[in-house]
Amino acid sequence: MLEIAKGCPLDRTLRLLSGEWTVHLLWALSSNGPTRHGELRRLVEGISSKVLTQKLRALEASGIVFRSYEATVPPKVTYGLTEQGQKVDRVLRSIEELAVEWQPAASS
Amino acid sequence: MLEIAKGCPLDRTLRLLSGEWTVHLLWALSSNGPTRHGELRRLVEGISSKVLTQKLRALEASGIVFRSYEATVPPKVTYGLTEQGQKVDRVLRSIEELAVEWQPAASS
Repeated sequence: MLEIAKGCPLDRTLRLLSGEWTVHLLWALSSNGPTRHGELRRLVEGISSKVLTQKLRALEASGIVFRSYEATVPPKVTYGLTEQGQKVDRVLRSIEELAVEWQPAASS
Repeated sequence: MLEIAKGCPLDRTLRLLSGEWTVHLLWALSSNGPTRHGELRRLVEGISSKVLTQKLRALEASGIVFRSYEATVPPKVTYGLTEQGQKVDRVLRSIEELAVEWQPAASS
């Protein structure tokens, strides 16, 4: 396995994924497809509107999430996974498998 | 994919993995095998001794890491992944693959 030197791509990916709520959000977007802010708040139980907005901006800046704006009345804003973002699916699936296997440990 | 209800096994696994330094630590233990505290501090660049001790205790309490004590002179304490902990390898590998693919995005 690769060494993790501070700032290397692996370190940056780990830091990006290990931020609070990040994987929960990626999970909701991966399962739900393009989703509105309000719906994301419902899907990610416990996240505040302010934190959700900050997280979405940070993920957008990292090229992982896109934000689309439709000038309907009222305007429609949805968030979704970019092509880069969709590559996180593999990590989400491996975490899902792990969660199923860890259930006894996780519930003790 | 599973829904993530607060407190469900998937939520607990995500929270466990998304704590700061956690995946870095699991990475070092997975690559290095049973390792002493001082060596772990060297392998996980930037972590403080205090945070490392707290993290190891929390991972030990979750059944992911074991702590072995040898009454040598001086005494020898090493930390390693339990059987449950070794199951995290699959997640680490998928993150490694992702990091290699995300390099352009991660470095922008």
